[in-house]
Amino acid sequence: MIKDREESLNMDEGEIDIQNRVIIFDTTLRDGEQSPGAALNVSEKVELAHKLEEMGIDVIEAGFPVSSPGDFRAVQQISREIRDCVVCGLTRAHRKDIDAAAAALEDAARPRIHTGLGVSDSHIFHKLRTTREEALERGVEAVKYARRFVDDVQYYAEDAGRADPEYLYRVLEAVITAGATVVNIPDTTGYTSPGEFGALIRSIVENVPNVDRATISVHCHNDLGMATANTLAGLLNGARQVEVTVNGIGERAGNCSLEEVVMALRTRQDLFGLRTGVDTRRIYPVSRLVSTLTGIPVQPNKAIVGANAFAHSSGIHQDGVLKERTTYEIIDPRDIGVPDSEIILSARSGRAGLRHRLTELGYTLDDDQFEKVYGRFLEVADKKKTVDTRDLEAIVNDEARVFFDETYHLEQVQVSCGDRSIPTATVHIRGPDGQSICDADHGTGPVDAVCRAIDRVIGESNELTEFSVQAVTEGIDAVGSVTIRIQAEDPVRENGNERRVFSGRGSDTDIVVASAKAYMFALNRLIAARREAERLAKT
Amino acid sequence: MIKDREESLNMDEGEIDIQNRVIIFDTTLRDGEQSPGAALNVSEKVELAHKLEEMGIDVIEAGFPVSSPGDFRAVQQISREIRDCVVCGLTRAHRKDIDAAAAALEDAARPRIHTGLGVSDSHIFHKLRTTREEALERGVEAVKYARRFVDDVQYYAEDAGRADPEYLYRVLEAVITAGATVVNIPDTTGYTSPGEFGALIRSIVENVPNVDRATISVHCHNDLGMATANTLAGLLNGARQVEVTVNGIGERAGNCSLEEVVMALRTRQDLFGLRTGVDTRRIYPVSRLVSTLTGIPVQPNKAIVGANAFAHSSGIHQDGVLKERTTYEIIDPRDIGVPDSEIILSARSGRAGLRHRLTELGYTLDDDQFEKVYGRFLEVADKKKTVDTRDLEAIVNDEARVFFDETYHLEQVQVSCGDRSIPTATVHIRGPDGQSICDADHGTGPVDAVCRAIDRVIGESNELTEFSVQAVTEGIDAVGSVTIRIQAEDPVRENGNERRVFSGRGSDTDIVVASAKAYMFALNRLIAARREAERLAKT
Repeated sequence: MIKDREESLNMDEGEIDIQNRVIIFDTTLRDGEQSPGAALNVSEKVELAHKLEEMGIDVIEAGFPVSSPGDFRAVQQISREIRDCVVCGLTRAHRKDIDAAAAALEDAARPRIHTGLGVSDSHIFHKLRTTREEALERGVEAVKYARRFVDDVQYYAEDAGRADPEYLYRVLEAVITAGATVVNIPDTTGYTSPGEFGALIRSIVENVPNVDRATISVHCHNDLGMATANTLAGLLNGARQVEVTVNGIGERAGNCSLEEVVMALRTRQDLFGLRTGVDTRRIYPVSRLVSTLTGIPVQPNKAIVGANAFAHSSGIHQDGVLKERTTYEIIDPRDIGVPDSEIILSARSGRAGLRHRLTELGYTLDDDQFEKVYGRFLEVADKKKTVDTRDLEAIVNDEARVFFDETYHLEQVQVSCGDRSIPTATVHIRGPDGQSICDADHGTGPVDAVCRAIDRVIGESNELTEFSVQAVTEGIDAVGSVTIRIQAEDPVRENGNERRVFSGRGSDTDIVVASAKAYMFALNRLIAARREAERLAKT
Repeated sequence: MIKDREESLNMDEGEIDIQNRVIIFDTTLRDGEQSPGAALNVSEKVELAHKLEEMGIDVIEAGFPVSSPGDFRAVQQISREIRDCVVCGLTRAHRKDIDAAAAALEDAARPRIHTGLGVSDSHIFHKLRTTREEALERGVEAVKYARRFVDDVQYYAEDAGRADPEYLYRVLEAVITAGATVVNIPDTTGYTSPGEFGALIRSIVENVPNVDRATISVHCHNDLGMATANTLAGLLNGARQVEVTVNGIGERAGNCSLEEVVMALRTRQDLFGLRTGVDTRRIYPVSRLVSTLTGIPVQPNKAIVGANAFAHSSGIHQDGVLKERTTYEIIDPRDIGVPDSEIILSARSGRAGLRHRLTELGYTLDDDQFEKVYGRFLEVADKKKTVDTRDLEAIVNDEARVFFDETYHLEQVQVSCGDRSIPTATVHIRGPDGQSICDADHGTGPVDAVCRAIDRVIGESNELTEFSVQAVTEGIDAVGSVTIRIQAEDPVRENGNERRVFSGRGSDTDIVVASAKAYMFALNRLIAARREAERLAKT
């Protein structure tokens, strides 16, 4: 269960104390991806998995293999490429699910199957329509079955908070006997408190006879704003694995936030006495990457990684005067990998200057990607003279982080609008056959007009469900990033599942051009997904 | 200390249990307003104060009177208009501060002065450069002095978490003896945990001999994502006042969130056994109002009031099938005042239909405001045929929530842009002398071009520090809301303070027109503030 990560930056040689090592189980790609509108494709998930591995995450929950071919392929591909982390696949307590997970995890160096069942009477009687004993048996069987394929099996006791305690203890004892190496105690409703949840974990430690043979994991939701506190209460009472997502993304009010737990443990060593294997300097770059790929912005006042959170602490360091110095380690932005935003580039920086800065910022690009980024860099430098860190992030996101093939290419867009005009847009688009098509349309505004013009060329009926612009803070001529989400009228069908929502992003100093790019991105992504689904249906 | 709010919707007649009544101390207008870019003017603060009063807040911390004439006037005006809530003014432990607060609170029905001092050695030695005994004396003197003016004095023990406990107890005992009615224990660094903070409050209850003569208050920050949990831990250990802000706004990662605490207490009555005087159906409208006036958006996954938080729960009610029913009260969106978003209006709805819907949504407009809103409503209805709840909110925000006089009026804007064009804008602006001025300029994009064109007319040098668009979710032809923040080159000077940052908002189906409106709003606000400062300087 414990990874051999002695070389981890947070642990001294010879000082490994297994009792004080917390396992970080990241479920950004599974529970986090259930955030409304977050949908990632396989390549994006693989990219994120690599970054999580570099960061020192212990376990990556890569997906729910039986749920869709896309999820299956993601778990499979991640299993093939990730070598250090445990790779985990979620299942219900059904043989079919476990078969799918086992198959997807086949090439993993360190596979884990995550199965489980409800343990509250409400779940057992109403959801599963069975008895306590039968449910217990089902859980045991699932664990035994999973153990045929892998040595590492995690068991979730769904709705543990409302279960009859004695029954819960019996279930946990039985599944551990059957071979579960980790038992996951979730706060399913998101309404527990640290005192209550800590007591639950404590009672499990005290009442499950063989609990020392497994690791206790906690999985908290943030409906009352207490996910982090509840998770830490679990650790204080004997849990040693925490289930988290980057930026706390997830359904409703989200999951427990990875960066909050990691930094709470680090800054309050005196209180918790626990360590993780995470390289905290990767926190900020990974936070940005997740935000970019999911299209979910990080609010300015997000703890740890929000713009206001670290802007203030840099103020403390810039001042000569000591403000609130503290015996606790104040979070230095450099501790979490926030780049020095003072560095500005211009066209004169050239390839070498750009390459150097990109490396500093933690981006790794192949030659092809670099050339695309360099080309955009020159365009932006030409328009606004200086190119700062935010502009670079937007350019890299556009040119080097696209994980599907573009079918239609936007060659030109022209718009006129105003409060007494009829907003009108003309677009020039090159199709898959190499033909350039030009068309125009009007709308209620320039963005509406440009999307309608694009629709006239591409003809993919959809409804826009979200349009947002990442706040620009570097001056009005800065590169703005637009995120668009569409709901396709004609969904992509995979294995009985329908996928309708597709997100797109685009950036430019011109917000209307950025919107056009974002809309094209979403449509191209939809078209690529449909083509892939059709290809799979034939195999 | 306890308000006579027997008629409060959350308390039954004859069942008032003072021991179980939690006082809500709202500091949105003081600590919350310190959020980067939040700056509210006096009229906006007064508007918010009225809404907080209607909501059942017990204490409104209206400002820091000695800090600026603007703050002084806000506390003064709120004192004059608010009748039910306690109105509170912040001070340092200086006579000058207390004099200012007393003067500002002069007309309040229920005034409170909030003073205090550091209690940690770090604060005493390095910040105050004095001794423990002298600091204690200073604190006692401040309370005695404040008691000359008001009967209700709150004392903050800054950095209590790092104070020598015995010293802390002595300070609290001394200030209560001197007449403090409330003692405020803040988590100054934002790094405490529920266990640690709860123990601190418990130790105060157990070690301060006269603590039963005062209410213990807690004031938590969210740097590690635990403000709500720490606050509730304080309540579980004997505190009976909580200091919160709407939407959890504030510096860095923000303050403890009002809606999270109130709804945690309400949904987990079984756990906490405590009540507030808050009408929870006001939570959502007040959240929206604070977001609008401060220009700080609420992220989709914000607990309680985020769009994802209540969208999901409405899904549970729409399904015939029971999903996760629970013995806890699931938060029904109607419980927190989320309007039924299904209602759509059109031009045919007429004045009557619009008036009815606005009342349903909780807006109160005078005739003048209603006519402006109706005019905009017809424009939008003409463009996009249907007008939904979000569109209405944007229209009301533009037309009925402007709390300063407009100097320059935008009469027309015309723009052309595109990736091969030079973005160009022409604007027609009517100035204070009634003259219409027309000018044009180019830029790196349409928004940049329109701002430069406006600059040519108005000539108020500034730098744009933020440009953001509220996510539009109702279709691409929906009304989009833009927020802009500018930093004036020539600051507004008041009483030795310099104010540079001004925010503006604007909405339209055309994002470029909305941006132009937002920029004009910010400039007009700046000009009005400068004019007001000059007027005061002459008096």
